[in-house]
Amino acid sequence: MAEVLRGAPVIQAMKERLIPEVEELRKKGIVPTLAIVRVGERQEDLAYERGAKKRFETIGAQIRVVALPGDILPEDFDKTIRELNEDTSVHGILVFAPLPDHLGKNRARGLVDPKKDVDSCTEASLAGVFTGSGTGYPPCTAQAVMEILHYYGVPVEGKKAAVIGRSLIIGRPAAQLLMAENATVVNLHRKTLQPEQIASQADILVAACGELRLVGPAYTNPDQVVIDVGVNWDSEKGGIAGDVDFDAVEPVVKAITPVPGGVGSVTTSVLASHVIDAAKKAAGM
Amino acid sequence: MAEVLRGAPVIQAMKERLIPEVEELRKKGIVPTLAIVRVGERQEDLAYERGAKKRFETIGAQIRVVALPGDILPEDFDKTIRELNEDTSVHGILVFAPLPDHLGKNRARGLVDPKKDVDSCTEASLAGVFTGSGTGYPPCTAQAVMEILHYYGVPVEGKKAAVIGRSLIIGRPAAQLLMAENATVVNLHRKTLQPEQIASQADILVAACGELRLVGPAYTNPDQVVIDVGVNWDSEKGGIAGDVDFDAVEPVVKAITPVPGGVGSVTTSVLASHVIDAAKKAAGM
Repeated sequence: MAEVLRGAPVIQAMKERLIPEVEELRKKGIVPTLAIVRVGERQEDLAYERGAKKRFETIGAQIRVVALPGDILPEDFDKTIRELNEDTSVHGILVFAPLPDHLGKNRARGLVDPKKDVDSCTEASLAGVFTGSGTGYPPCTAQAVMEILHYYGVPVEGKKAAVIGRSLIIGRPAAQLLMAENATVVNLHRKTLQPEQIASQADILVAACGELRLVGPAYTNPDQVVIDVGVNWDSEKGGIAGDVDFDAVEPVVKAITPVPGGVGSVTTSVLASHVIDAAKKAAGM
Repeated sequence: MAEVLRGAPVIQAMKERLIPEVEELRKKGIVPTLAIVRVGERQEDLAYERGAKKRFETIGAQIRVVALPGDILPEDFDKTIRELNEDTSVHGILVFAPLPDHLGKNRARGLVDPKKDVDSCTEASLAGVFTGSGTGYPPCTAQAVMEILHYYGVPVEGKKAAVIGRSLIIGRPAAQLLMAENATVVNLHRKTLQPEQIASQADILVAACGELRLVGPAYTNPDQVVIDVGVNWDSEKGGIAGDVDFDAVEPVVKAITPVPGGVGSVTTSVLASHVIDAAKKAAGM
């Protein structure tokens, strides 16, 4: 039976760390504020928005939703982002991705002020993750992986880590964050041969491939800590489930995060921490 | 006995590929031109400069050396770079690193126009390597590794690659370039435990740790292709030598690059290819 690494105590610890920081800012008349830019009304965007709003409230930070029509003109979209860049009462900007085709998938990438780019949508933030220069903020989900490892005291330095998936929002930045803490990281992907054989050698396995229950016991070993980043719709279960086959893997590894209630639940806390940090930097603190 | 993967035929093949491109440009009155910015007169910079000039001449491209005094004022240095950014007869800019302390090690990083950044000194180029966005150019040495693998027909897709070293100019970008071609890459570094055990599982081993003869037979296997990026002074030999113990490793692997005459020799050809590409882009070709 594995230790189940739930997000709830991580969220609680982050909240206790962040509240005094928000109080410091409020004393100076600053309320850490995130602008969420949503184009259209996708269900998953609305769900994330509600979750983020609740989380921010518990910490004392706030969210301003900028809801744009699905058929907004590119020039109006650009103008909105530029105004948010200029608005000193906004410390972070999150643009829901992907944007509609007529705007261009990566339109936000070149527009958002890197200083307000709290979820690594710009090249500058991604470059910062890669170079370790401290520019920008890593993607929230990738950092949520690290927050969970830290909270539960999982050693990273000198450990072998395998990251399954090489997306720019999770796999690749998670690999870089793990290496920055001196893990030896292998990044697996669709073209990897014998992924089970490689993954089963890892002390830390991060599953971020976006395939329901792809990762079974063959990917693991009894001393392994498994971090499941997957958020997949499981039609049998009628709910979300991870990239890891939890029921099969949980009995044979050392520790594992659940889905839901694991990595995903921590991301909005990371988002809040980025907004608070951006607000502090903007205030010269 | 391993196949010795020499740089000379790679250089020759690249030359044959590049000359017609230069001829096309010259027909339009454009001579692909690299500005080398050198502060002071370090021996290794002067040596590289001479080598690059020769290589460029054989291809029909040219180099303009901008030699600055070792005690140049930061504002004068900045002005020089800005002028080169503006100068339409210059297509690429290479600033010898590291810069003197009084200028700041990474001063060039924020100054060079990313379009002219032919050796990945800017964050934008490094971001491009990480994101695969096509922005900028990868570091020449990292790309030289790929040129050698391609020339000698070493399969990359689906292969296991181990990169020893995680510098921003070689290790990390080489790992990204290998992954972009669908290798499964593990990046080893100083804090890696049992590096021999990990490296010896690789089909392709890239040694870029900067330690004379660190990599011995224990890091290898008989089917391995070894790419030695190291350039170290070997006082016994009285010359340069690699990170790989060539005499011990060559008999027990499938293929290996020599030092000198391997990766290092190809880098100036890669540099020329970047300058030519930048010149073509500037001309809208």
